[in-house]
Amino acid sequence: MSEAVSISASRSGLIIREKEPANLEFPFASLTPVTPTNEFFVRTHFPIPAISAKDWTLTVDGEVEQELVLTYDDLLRLPSVTAPVLLECAGNGRAQLVPKAKGLLWDTGAVGTAEWTGVPLSAVLEKAGVKKGAVDVILQGADKGEVDDPKSPGVVHFERSLPLAKAMRPEVFLAYKMNGKDLTPDHGFPVRAIVGGWYGMASVKWLTHVTVTAAPFEGFWQSLEYAYWKRERERPTLTAVTEVQVKAQIARPALSEAVPGGKPYRVFGAAWSGESDVVRVEVSTDGKTWSEATLLGESVPFAWRLWAFQWNVPEATGQYRVMARATDTKGHTQPVKHDSDRRTYMINFAFAVEVEVV
Amino acid sequence: MSEAVSISASRSGLIIREKEPANLEFPFASLTPVTPTNEFFVRTHFPIPAISAKDWTLTVDGEVEQELVLTYDDLLRLPSVTAPVLLECAGNGRAQLVPKAKGLLWDTGAVGTAEWTGVPLSAVLEKAGVKKGAVDVILQGADKGEVDDPKSPGVVHFERSLPLAKAMRPEVFLAYKMNGKDLTPDHGFPVRAIVGGWYGMASVKWLTHVTVTAAPFEGFWQSLEYAYWKRERERPTLTAVTEVQVKAQIARPALSEAVPGGKPYRVFGAAWSGESDVVRVEVSTDGKTWSEATLLGESVPFAWRLWAFQWNVPEATGQYRVMARATDTKGHTQPVKHDSDRRTYMINFAFAVEVEVV
Repeated sequence: MSEAVSISASRSGLIIREKEPANLEFPFASLTPVTPTNEFFVRTHFPIPAISAKDWTLTVDGEVEQELVLTYDDLLRLPSVTAPVLLECAGNGRAQLVPKAKGLLWDTGAVGTAEWTGVPLSAVLEKAGVKKGAVDVILQGADKGEVDDPKSPGVVHFERSLPLAKAMRPEVFLAYKMNGKDLTPDHGFPVRAIVGGWYGMASVKWLTHVTVTAAPFEGFWQSLEYAYWKRERERPTLTAVTEVQVKAQIARPALSEAVPGGKPYRVFGAAWSGESDVVRVEVSTDGKTWSEATLLGESVPFAWRLWAFQWNVPEATGQYRVMARATDTKGHTQPVKHDSDRRTYMINFAFAVEVEVV
Repeated sequence: MSEAVSISASRSGLIIREKEPANLEFPFASLTPVTPTNEFFVRTHFPIPAISAKDWTLTVDGEVEQELVLTYDDLLRLPSVTAPVLLECAGNGRAQLVPKAKGLLWDTGAVGTAEWTGVPLSAVLEKAGVKKGAVDVILQGADKGEVDDPKSPGVVHFERSLPLAKAMRPEVFLAYKMNGKDLTPDHGFPVRAIVGGWYGMASVKWLTHVTVTAAPFEGFWQSLEYAYWKRERERPTLTAVTEVQVKAQIARPALSEAVPGGKPYRVFGAAWSGESDVVRVEVSTDGKTWSEATLLGESVPFAWRLWAFQWNVPEATGQYRVMARATDTKGHTQPVKHDSDRRTYMINFAFAVEVEVV
């Protein structure tokens, strides 16, 4: 993907969406194949827990033959995998919703692809021995605080579950390195989950407990928050947000960028889809016609794919609207508007970047 | 101020704080002596009114000898001034408040300095002839919408007043050009007020009415919004926000920037104070000691002053907190924390930019 590296000159620092707890956005115009750790978006729900690797343990319990308590050294001794995996916040793009949505108003930078190193969750679950009839695997972090949960008010830990089948897949692992170095505190030191293909809320940080259950888990963070209205026979049910939706995002031009008229301009961005690969990215600069962009490098499962498109910018000055849309191997294409059943999550409608041709 | 221009390579596009009405932030890491029009922050309260220069008129009425209705051509025929003037939103820095404030969460980029061209308001007021006993001059824009004003609910125009003495000063003018070109729709086309030294809300855009009053004006936008608690003999009164407070802001390093250890690093930023000049900027990189930065170029009234500081970055890697603070000719220095009487306006306490020495 080296074609894209030339773009990396532009770096603007993280954008503050909330100071405390820290919610920081990557300036997407700084897109590079791998997002540097210090520019990777930060999503926290509570204060960042201070955990030393020496004191950290991971408890594996519930529907298992053998309860486990692993130390950091135990984890490091297990066979590891390393892979670039995209994480996108389920609310990425929320600033594009009109009227103004509640919650953190992420624009396009609550997404990144880093190279993660860790132990497949399946290896740890196999070591513990999952009992027959197990359904869900709850991942619990050390981060905690008060939430407005009618079912269990008060202080709770952040936790999310995976169906057992997903938990056993190779793209789900317990990561202790990000881009070749120990995790930083804001990204889950010492150990976090990485759940490839799913929105970021599943990749629980500061992971301390893995609990296998015989019944579906219905925690706050998947039945109220990070949940959308799924309609089955017209009856809407709040359902956990899971798989990342297909999306293309434009890094260049940036919003309101001054683009010289009468010259070629390299429109540049990234595209991704949760458990599928992107097969096509199209760009529109006139609001009517779409032209195919070039996919750069090779397709890597669970990472984004960079793309570029040569725009032959007209001589006529004025405002132009640049759009991109992606299609994945399952044939899914981005919608033209946001489905309100998704509430303020899974925002993947194709919107325009307005620029000024000068 | 040419020393600073080398920094301009980094441009990330405007940051969306609200999509509609458009509230867009300048990425302050892209700081240059003059902010390009397409990167200048956009603050709107209502949809942007579409006004043609041909149809536009400015009505000057109230306590005047002679009511005036000026056309765009009338205005262009009057003697004009051109000057760089800083505009800062009264809520700039709000994202730094903890707990999270209501309102638009601007970080450091709701500020810019552009070169404005226009007719001094005093020339127009003199043409109309201000009557004795006049007190305030109300500036009203064509933009309008519903507000929660207990005194006059329903649809209102955006409007702010100036005391007559301020209205007559040379730094107050009716601008029709920004950076040498006609205003763009988002910056107030065809004509806007520029009120040097005051927060941006006074520089009313899409200006259509100037009304001189014999009693102090108490509109929504200065008695409820854009108003702070002023204490006189312990009795707090909601008082209009007016003069820009002294402030230094850091453009580089950006938040979370990776700074190479053991080398010099050029900390770079801008400083300003409403109706005063900046006399000193100090930088701290250790949380204890302050060192004087170099003020670049010349002091220009009502514009910002760029500054730089050579930081001899330690070898020791880890997180560092870089801070800057300014002092003006009146001896005002930035406070260490936000005064809650200011509500979520006039935010000029010195806060830290956290960076990673690598």
